[in-house]
Amino acid sequence: MIPRYSRPEMVALWSPETKFRIWYEIEAHACDAQAALGVIPKANAEAVWRAKDVTFDVARIDEIEAVTKHDVIAFLTHLAEHIGAEDARFVHQGMTSSDVLDTTLNIQLVRAADILLAGMDRVLAALKTRAFEHKDTVRIGRSHGIHAEPTTMGLTFARFYAEMDRGRKRLAAARDEVRTGAISGAVGTFANIDPAVEEHVCKMLGLLPEPISTQVIPRDRHAMFFATLGVIASSIENIAIEIRHMQRTEVLEAEEYFSPGQKGSSAMPHKRNPVLTENLTGLARLVRMAVIPAMENVALWHERDISHSSVERAIGPDATITLDFALHRLAGVIEKLVVYPDNMLKNMNKFRGLVMSQRVLLALTQAGVSREDAYRLVQRNAMKVWEQGADFKTELLADPDVTAALSPAEIEEKFDLGYHTKHVDTIFRRVFGA
Amino acid sequence: MIPRYSRPEMVALWSPETKFRIWYEIEAHACDAQAALGVIPKANAEAVWRAKDVTFDVARIDEIEAVTKHDVIAFLTHLAEHIGAEDARFVHQGMTSSDVLDTTLNIQLVRAADILLAGMDRVLAALKTRAFEHKDTVRIGRSHGIHAEPTTMGLTFARFYAEMDRGRKRLAAARDEVRTGAISGAVGTFANIDPAVEEHVCKMLGLLPEPISTQVIPRDRHAMFFATLGVIASSIENIAIEIRHMQRTEVLEAEEYFSPGQKGSSAMPHKRNPVLTENLTGLARLVRMAVIPAMENVALWHERDISHSSVERAIGPDATITLDFALHRLAGVIEKLVVYPDNMLKNMNKFRGLVMSQRVLLALTQAGVSREDAYRLVQRNAMKVWEQGADFKTELLADPDVTAALSPAEIEEKFDLGYHTKHVDTIFRRVFGA
Amino acid sequence: MIPRYSRPEMVALWSPETKFRIWYEIEAHACDAQAALGVIPKANAEAVWRAKDVTFDVARIDEIEAVTKHDVIAFLTHLAEHIGAEDARFVHQGMTSSDVLDTTLNIQLVRAADILLAGMDRVLAALKTRAFEHKDTVRIGRSHGIHAEPTTMGLTFARFYAEMDRGRKRLAAARDEVRTGAISGAVGTFANIDPAVEEHVCKMLGLLPEPISTQVIPRDRHAMFFATLGVIASSIENIAIEIRHMQRTEVLEAEEYFSPGQKGSSAMPHKRNPVLTENLTGLARLVRMAVIPAMENVALWHERDISHSSVERAIGPDATITLDFALHRLAGVIEKLVVYPDNMLKNMNKFRGLVMSQRVLLALTQAGVSREDAYRLVQRNAMKVWEQGADFKTELLADPDVTAALSPAEIEEKFDLGYHTKHVDTIFRRVFGA
Amino acid sequence: MIPRYSRPEMVALWSPETKFRIWYEIEAHACDAQAALGVIPKANAEAVWRAKDVTFDVARIDEIEAVTKHDVIAFLTHLAEHIGAEDARFVHQGMTSSDVLDTTLNIQLVRAADILLAGMDRVLAALKTRAFEHKDTVRIGRSHGIHAEPTTMGLTFARFYAEMDRGRKRLAAARDEVRTGAISGAVGTFANIDPAVEEHVCKMLGLLPEPISTQVIPRDRHAMFFATLGVIASSIENIAIEIRHMQRTEVLEAEEYFSPGQKGSSAMPHKRNPVLTENLTGLARLVRMAVIPAMENVALWHERDISHSSVERAIGPDATITLDFALHRLAGVIEKLVVYPDNMLKNMNKFRGLVMSQRVLLALTQAGVSREDAYRLVQRNAMKVWEQGADFKTELLADPDVTAALSPAEIEEKFDLGYHTKHVDTIFRRVFGA
Repeated sequence: MIPRYSRPEMVALWSPETKFRIWYEIEAHACDAQAALGVIPKANAEAVWRAKDVTFDVARIDEIEAVTKHDVIAFLTHLAEHIGAEDARFVHQGMTSSDVLDTTLNIQLVRAADILLAGMDRVLAALKTRAFEHKDTVRIGRSHGIHAEPTTMGLTFARFYAEMDRGRKRLAAARDEVRTGAISGAVGTFANIDPAVEEHVCKMLGLLPEPISTQVIPRDRHAMFFATLGVIASSIENIAIEIRHMQRTEVLEAEEYFSPGQKGSSAMPHKRNPVLTENLTGLARLVRMAVIPAMENVALWHERDISHSSVERAIGPDATITLDFALHRLAGVIEKLVVYPDNMLKNMNKFRGLVMSQRVLLALTQAGVSREDAYRLVQRNAMKVWEQGADFKTELLADPDVTAALSPAEIEEKFDLGYHTKHVDTIFRRVFGA
Repeated sequence: MIPRYSRPEMVALWSPETKFRIWYEIEAHACDAQAALGVIPKANAEAVWRAKDVTFDVARIDEIEAVTKHDVIAFLTHLAEHIGAEDARFVHQGMTSSDVLDTTLNIQLVRAADILLAGMDRVLAALKTRAFEHKDTVRIGRSHGIHAEPTTMGLTFARFYAEMDRGRKRLAAARDEVRTGAISGAVGTFANIDPAVEEHVCKMLGLLPEPISTQVIPRDRHAMFFATLGVIASSIENIAIEIRHMQRTEVLEAEEYFSPGQKGSSAMPHKRNPVLTENLTGLARLVRMAVIPAMENVALWHERDISHSSVERAIGPDATITLDFALHRLAGVIEKLVVYPDNMLKNMNKFRGLVMSQRVLLALTQAGVSREDAYRLVQRNAMKVWEQGADFKTELLADPDVTAALSPAEIEEKFDLGYHTKHVDTIFRRVFGA
Repeated sequence: MIPRYSRPEMVALWSPETKFRIWYEIEAHACDAQAALGVIPKANAEAVWRAKDVTFDVARIDEIEAVTKHDVIAFLTHLAEHIGAEDARFVHQGMTSSDVLDTTLNIQLVRAADILLAGMDRVLAALKTRAFEHKDTVRIGRSHGIHAEPTTMGLTFARFYAEMDRGRKRLAAARDEVRTGAISGAVGTFANIDPAVEEHVCKMLGLLPEPISTQVIPRDRHAMFFATLGVIASSIENIAIEIRHMQRTEVLEAEEYFSPGQKGSSAMPHKRNPVLTENLTGLARLVRMAVIPAMENVALWHERDISHSSVERAIGPDATITLDFALHRLAGVIEKLVVYPDNMLKNMNKFRGLVMSQRVLLALTQAGVSREDAYRLVQRNAMKVWEQGADFKTELLADPDVTAALSPAEIEEKFDLGYHTKHVDTIFRRVFGA
Repeated sequence: MIPRYSRPEMVALWSPETKFRIWYEIEAHACDAQAALGVIPKANAEAVWRAKDVTFDVARIDEIEAVTKHDVIAFLTHLAEHIGAEDARFVHQGMTSSDVLDTTLNIQLVRAADILLAGMDRVLAALKTRAFEHKDTVRIGRSHGIHAEPTTMGLTFARFYAEMDRGRKRLAAARDEVRTGAISGAVGTFANIDPAVEEHVCKMLGLLPEPISTQVIPRDRHAMFFATLGVIASSIENIAIEIRHMQRTEVLEAEEYFSPGQKGSSAMPHKRNPVLTENLTGLARLVRMAVIPAMENVALWHERDISHSSVERAIGPDATITLDFALHRLAGVIEKLVVYPDNMLKNMNKFRGLVMSQRVLLALTQAGVSREDAYRLVQRNAMKVWEQGADFKTELLADPDVTAALSPAEIEEKFDLGYHTKHVDTIFRRVFGA
């Protein structure tokens, strides 16, 4: 976790304080369930709730762990310091450390997903606003970085909206993947603890019981979760790359908002660099790097080994904190993106009508010219534009083989921009609904 | 694609023949829709179907491509050779190559998913059968590779079933991710082709229209698809590792089926190596390696660049063929796995009752001994077993501090295996339903 | 391996024919060494060489393997068909399959490295030629995609040369990493075969004996090899991205060579797309995807498991064939790249002198203006250029605060391009030597 | 960076304090060089050294950065607070931020490499000691997890030594890869700063001048650095997996040292889990995950974009801190590993002589039996051992077909362990030298 790429809300979720709080709640709810089953005395279960408003002392727990070399035992020892050793003696009964640790991790991942979903909502709202704002702002579409045919800036925002909306659905599904808890004992057989305890704890904490666990909750769930974060990060990169391209000097169709007082470069004061979207490109790589280790974590030995643990201590916070920050950075970029419609038109006309070649080609074919001949006709005039700086329409009007097939009016009509935007409404309906 | 790790059905899906067949169907259905719209003559649309039963000549198409350096043009030229240049002249009108290529890729991925789903069904059926067969076959559960508490072989199969069942649901979702087609023209604006064509082609080919495309179908869909394959491959690895552990000489709780005549080693004829599951471990790595490139493919420049194409030419076939083979190899391994219940019991008793220490610990606590004292009591007897080869139950019965808290009968009862298997039915119900 | 992204020389290296040929040579040399030690009769060793000119029948060996399910035994059986069962009976004595397989793999990797080194040499030669050709071709340097200060096209080629030259050294080192052979028996103890056999075979085949092997040659060597390929592929991507940027419509400082008759698009005949460098971008991803699986292959169980094998069957050929093809494709692109110096100048002047702001800033500082004031002075004139389309030099000459510090002649001098290229020779000497 | 997996020395290297200290030294040395060239006054250069013993105030610099949004400017502003605005005004002249940032990063990576090399030396020393200690401790070699032939524990340590020694050489090479500095200005042309400044700064800080840079030092160097860390981490995993296998209950040939007072499990007091090596397995995944992002960082746009920066802020500290911790954890594990030679012998005899089958097979062949017949003879007796628990030697002595070829004494001789260890000295000489 890099402080400059983090937001406090997500950081807090991964703090020791939050972790111990969740541990406590799991233990306390488990005691309730055990008391209800008659396994432990009701009084002892109730006693645990005395620590309800305690903020656990992280330094003290670390101190105990330095001796016991076991984090859960350290916490339980500290908990006993609060509620008294006698009253605390049934806490954790029949449970194994992983019951607490794994259920906690999943609660954190579910909450992280909720924060991320809110971030995605902000991105979606920004994209939608800007899409409608620029629904009819014509710009050139490009394939291979080369001018192709006109499109609109609104369609660019709309396709990112659609992509992020898919990402949102994926994230909701990924949240469901990790929304389970397990209190099933040392190897998952419930030998020492009744399944009712698991059911109660899960219900109280918004989880579903893991249908079958070993000592741990199966890690394919987490692999899917992190893989999903990787896909969303890649979509962020996709948007970032588009904006970086739009901002490059020769294109300049948009710029990240540049606040007064911000310095672009220590050496070149005129520079306005797309540093936020470049940063997002790097952050996407960081989120993505969690994917493979999360998959390598799936194949644990027998009922568990602990190789996954160090990996999750890193990627759990890192991937969610980084993605969360990236989503909000992205939302800010989109909300404030400065768009230059004039430059869009200027760029489109760089090759004097050449981008309409496809239309002319089709018109020739429709007029009865064979596809091969039409292609040759268009290409020979296109090459004059390309190589000699001619104007495409002028050349076509002067080419007798072309005018033999198409009237001047028909040729003129092929250069109407409205032709290219006539289905924008249809597409917007598909993306944003009626 | 490595022939020895492939099945013909999946290989055929990725053959040039299949690809050209799909291209043809897309073009033919598109002509129908264009004719219905009155854009092209009905007769020309009908003429295209004359090639309905043609098997396209891959070598001839390659020959043309060597000249045109463009695969779709090469195919269209060849198609014209079949139905006549005159009748063929409206084929592909208003479309761009990617309309054909991307829709085709998605059709292949959907079909690949169907084949994979069938493979998963076979794995699931095998796991279920073996789970019920060994529901009550007791074996030791292990955490960290160290004996923990008893579980059953049936639970092992059942948890793999649950994991694969999650994988199946993920794969079905991944199939939906790529079940779209696009016939939207050079930059996705439908400038030269009516959206109705896309709708018709998708409907006829079992796809949904991509709500908003550029020149290409957005690659976040494919990233999610391949990420999902990576998770499933990791689950295969998980099962493979378990079996490899079970087969190792010192454990020998199960063996891959060894056919008569099979040679395990050119040098050591007694060896029966778990080569299939070792192979599955490697195949999992191969499937997984498609994940990151698929994510790197998402951020294309503007309305498309073609960097994704070479990646998909490789990972499209490779990841699906390898995973398909792996699923069937895994199914075969599970179906025929030779299980050794006697060795399971022998292994469990290796430490003369030590695996019951947790029960004794709990019993002592229940009998009023403090957790810390109980822990010390259990540990001191456990250490005698561990270091001097003593029998745990015997030691406990001889320890006055223990017998002060527990009667001999109570101690005896702690060594009953039924205690550990009493919830197996509950778990099976959770996994397999009523 | 994708045929369209492969060259015959590298493909041939990975053919079954080549593999069996190498197996044969290993076995034959091993027999010689065994005969020299007196372990097997000289006549039998000599008999093996009778198959010297045989091209082994791959189909026949496959047929045998279908029965034996063991590839080396299948080959040995087939070899016996050539030289007679009686004479063949000492072949492979004391050896284990991996002695043959691992030594063969390393021979293939060494040869692959040699082919790749030749490809790198071609790339280096092309880069050097173009670097000197365009040593003084001025173009704008860009950071963040934004104009910064002038540089030259020659420097661009030169830095790619330097990077590829580092890649070449890395590849030579990676070649050394895998230049070992092992004939050390079932677990690497030489129990059944004298180390002298290993020494002889390695010497005859250009390898060094692996100092300590198990059943296999340790896989950290191969991990390092494939990691190195991944770095080189990333350098190829680096060059490809530069060219793609240069070719984009708005920049157009260079283009991939476009052969007469080549069609850029089925729909837009004017388009000249940088498809080769886009393809190289994708190929880089493909090479890179071998890196992690190669690292996952390192941790084999005990003296070996066979999980690495399937991975290497794929990445061995795939990564080397793809990188080889990419190197030659890259060399071709560089050799024939069409460079547009006029467009470079036009682009540089897009912002009317703004790229000289850094020089002016420094001059002001040198003239005694504080850094903060100088920055403000430059920035305020720069903003007029940026926002109102003014000319930077004109504005500076009209700003009394500027002219108070710098004379008109001093201001003029700051716009001299020679200032920026004065150290090009120095840099070229560093890169290419005297 | 996860505190529990870090060592203070490496953490300190990545602290803001260390970073600002290096920035300061670069700036101060650059001023010296500029003064020597006569570009800035000597007095100003000398003034900079007044801050020689200052510990820079990180909080204050952060405060300034919050306004300037530029870290280097913030630092320079703070530096001026120490040495006076007037004296400070030539600091950083002609330089660009990346000159400082990139040179600093490389200094940190070089120092990190030095710390890592020391860690590797500790691992190597431990492995060598244990190798000689257990040179003749016989244990069974295993392929596929199945008993093969005897080897020794010393050979196991020795092969890890050889692997780590290769890793050390790779790390030294990786250190050289990043041992460069650059003070070459905004696009690497030295337009505003003489190459002599770069040369002086590099010399004073133990670096070599980057032969050709842009705004940044080329990232292929860093990609190679992190790839190398990934390979070394994989070697750590390799050792960790071996130890985890040795410690599993059924094998128990070694155990991680278990300190008195350490608790293995909150529930099962008898358990001694290989948690350190399991942890190392996870840490290896963490180090490895830096490899691909580092490679993705290579292809920056033109003379630089800043996408690499966030990646390096994470992987720079994370990968080096984690690997450093892992090396020392590994060294500790090896130094204190508890080895159980008796269990090794017990395991080897599990199949009553079967591991000698290869020797018997060879002896039969040597005695004139055909390979196929010998194989059958050995296999039929081996199967009795395997399936009926017979003793291999006894069966062979009772098989008339065997005794027809081999005398009882010859059979006896095949079961001598010395046969398998006769070349251990040779191998040790290869690994450790004379």
